Amino acid sequence: MFELIIRYAIEAVSSPITPLANAADWGVFAFMEVLNDSYYMGLALELAAKAAGQTGINPVVGCVVVKEGRIIGVGTHLKRGTGHAEVHALQMAGDEAEGATVYVTLEPCSHFGKTPPCCERIIAAKAARVVVAATDPNPQVAGRGLERLRESGIEVTVGLLEEKSRSMNEKFNKYITTKLPFVTLKTASTLDGKIASRTGDSRWITGAAAREQVHTLRHQHEAIMVGIATVLADDPMLTTRAEVPAIHPVRIIVDSKLRLPLDARVVTDRSARTLVLTTEGADQAKGAALEAAGVELVRAGAGEHVDLKEAMRKLGEAEIGSILLEGGGKLNGAMLEAGLIDKIMIYMATKIIGGLQAPGTFTFDGFEKMAQAIELERVAVEMAGEDICIAGYPAYSQH
Amino acid sequence: MFELIIRYAIEAVSSPITPLANAADWGVFAFMEVLNDSYYMGLALELAAKAAGQTGINPVVGCVVVKEGRIIGVGTHLKRGTGHAEVHALQMAGDEAEGATVYVTLEPCSHFGKTPPCCERIIAAKAARVVVAATDPNPQVAGRGLERLRESGIEVTVGLLEEKSRSMNEKFNKYITTKLPFVTLKTASTLDGKIASRTGDSRWITGAAAREQVHTLRHQHEAIMVGIATVLADDPMLTTRAEVPAIHPVRIIVDSKLRLPLDARVVTDRSARTLVLTTEGADQAKGAALEAAGVELVRAGAGEHVDLKEAMRKLGEAEIGSILLEGGGKLNGAMLEAGLIDKIMIYMATKIIGGLQAPGTFTFDGFEKMAQAIELERVAVEMAGEDICIAGYPAYSQH
Repeated sequence: MFELIIRYAIEAVSSPITPLANAADWGVFAFMEVLNDSYYMGLALELAAKAAGQTGINPVVGCVVVKEGRIIGVGTHLKRGTGHAEVHALQMAGDEAEGATVYVTLEPCSHFGKTPPCCERIIAAKAARVVVAATDPNPQVAGRGLERLRESGIEVTVGLLEEKSRSMNEKFNKYITTKLPFVTLKTASTLDGKIASRTGDSRWITGAAAREQVHTLRHQHEAIMVGIATVLADDPMLTTRAEVPAIHPVRIIVDSKLRLPLDARVVTDRSARTLVLTTEGADQAKGAALEAAGVELVRAGAGEHVDLKEAMRKLGEAEIGSILLEGGGKLNGAMLEAGLIDKIMIYMATKIIGGLQAPGTFTFDGFEKMAQAIELERVAVEMAGEDICIAGYPAYSQH
Repeated sequence: MFELIIRYAIEAVSSPITPLANAADWGVFAFMEVLNDSYYMGLALELAAKAAGQTGINPVVGCVVVKEGRIIGVGTHLKRGTGHAEVHALQMAGDEAEGATVYVTLEPCSHFGKTPPCCERIIAAKAARVVVAATDPNPQVAGRGLERLRESGIEVTVGLLEEKSRSMNEKFNKYITTKLPFVTLKTASTLDGKIASRTGDSRWITGAAAREQVHTLRHQHEAIMVGIATVLADDPMLTTRAEVPAIHPVRIIVDSKLRLPLDARVVTDRSARTLVLTTEGADQAKGAALEAAGVELVRAGAGEHVDLKEAMRKLGEAEIGSILLEGGGKLNGAMLEAGLIDKIMIYMATKIIGGLQAPGTFTFDGFEKMAQAIELERVAVEMAGEDICIAGYPAYSQH
């Protein structure tokens, strides 16, 4: 959904005469809609999008069942290990599903995972037609679901609003194909690229609107990651504070030397799991003490610093599918240099703080030539209150 | 005009359902217009805006004369010392002007300046009504023009599209009230606030679209200002290169120690005036040699560095009303610290270069607390090709 709103914004900014939204594209933003396949797929996408954060490493999927001009069932995947979107929607439709059209944002699964294959459920319900936004990149599905439906005589349409479905599952799409977590870097800086003043003061760079959005990002990621310096400086809780109850992410602290105090809030408050990334050589006694206090340790790398690539691999094995990186400049720089950041969201406050030694968003050696700079692709710009949010995907290909 | 387009952009970005443009506001961007006072004032504003850069320290002013449903005269102020917009438009209207409505973007002058007062010309033409966008901040006018028109029985409407007129004359408005040049800082940086790599490479940070816009900014300012380091590093021409012939700004080099080589292009090419800001103590012989080569020297400050405040005062005395500052980090930082920058335009490339020692947009000591940061007011965001242009006005009040 993010992607979409942003595409409008970019078009609007580039060309003031472009109409803001194509009404047929996305029902909820249009003041006049057109009744067609997109009308129903728009609802299925909205159902999927709003469940972001609660499906773990599973994708978000929405489903709408329609017959003779009426919606007869709606569903969304709520939680890993529970019914898929199609199952919920067909359950609601009951016997009426015979001859109906099923709109689903992701290809129905064809394999036995934690639940039985949705294809069989759709066939059993005797649906006449299935409209799919995107195929499932899961190597266990990847087109087999569509095949199975077609074999059974169901009419299948695929690719409607496909980009929207893909972008709302960008975390899942990476994880299911690489077993590595999708990492979103969120940072807030001044116009001169500083994340604090020369004395270290950072309250506040951005306004309330940006900070509220960041808590929503925490809700929508499985884990949040910071460096030990942040914990030592601020003793943060790293929980999700929203106007409504929200999901707290797993807290990941990068702490090569196990300096994490046993009385830090992330250790004592038990509001969410806390996972410490450290090195093989880090103090065994301190490690045992932290584990005794409920902290999970992941040792990655025999060197002085955590081997971040190895750490991401181990986090993937531990079924952490997405991470919101809220590091300081050093951790951000190291993650970027290692090519481990998938998406960057910079909240830029329209102010200038100055200070040669004031910390920047990315502290790393950098490149010799401007042509070597890491460019963002698919850039999107939105206002967040008085701040500017710039989002994009780093292109590492040239490095 | 800049202001206006940007306002649309900001609204669009903040709220995707806001219609992009209010058709009545600004004819040229609307696909359907409404015939009313704004319809004609829109043309007068466009006439004024396009003359930006060619009126020197004078304001830009446009005028449209209308009678019985037809435009009968149009005019714009073209050059200081030549006819005002009203004079041109009334000249075109001839005898038909009797009973007409005169739309003018700035209050007609009531005093004898380099040309006779426009009020008298309008009265002599027997116009029935005058619609004015903004009053003239010039202390010699400041409402007296409107008074004079009303006294003579002409109906006067004031304040239509006022903000648009004021913003296109922001340079004039400052100069006429303070006798100091209006300084626009233009800079191009990466997302991490760097204006070059750690090795000094800066080709290119931004794309072609941004660079084209910068040449238009040069055309629209009376002078361009850089530090001596830029001249020594790049030997730039500092001229305006556009698709069509353009006005070259006066070149101002800040050079405290008179290190400017006699064979620098800004000295030898004679494409525009070159003015060197230096200190009172800087080498007299070198100064004489530069003057002999056609360079104008302005000495400001007895210390080691140019006293920038004093320099701005002297430039104002020399009738330089607007300056485009394209400095490196040091000059930008010093100008900002001195509160001498009126407007900031940052072209931000969506890339990350890194490098602790890579130069930043503003090199100065900076502030201790984030709350002390210099905030931009009236912020505007537009895309310039693939780059993001962020513009605003630094608020120095809290400092």
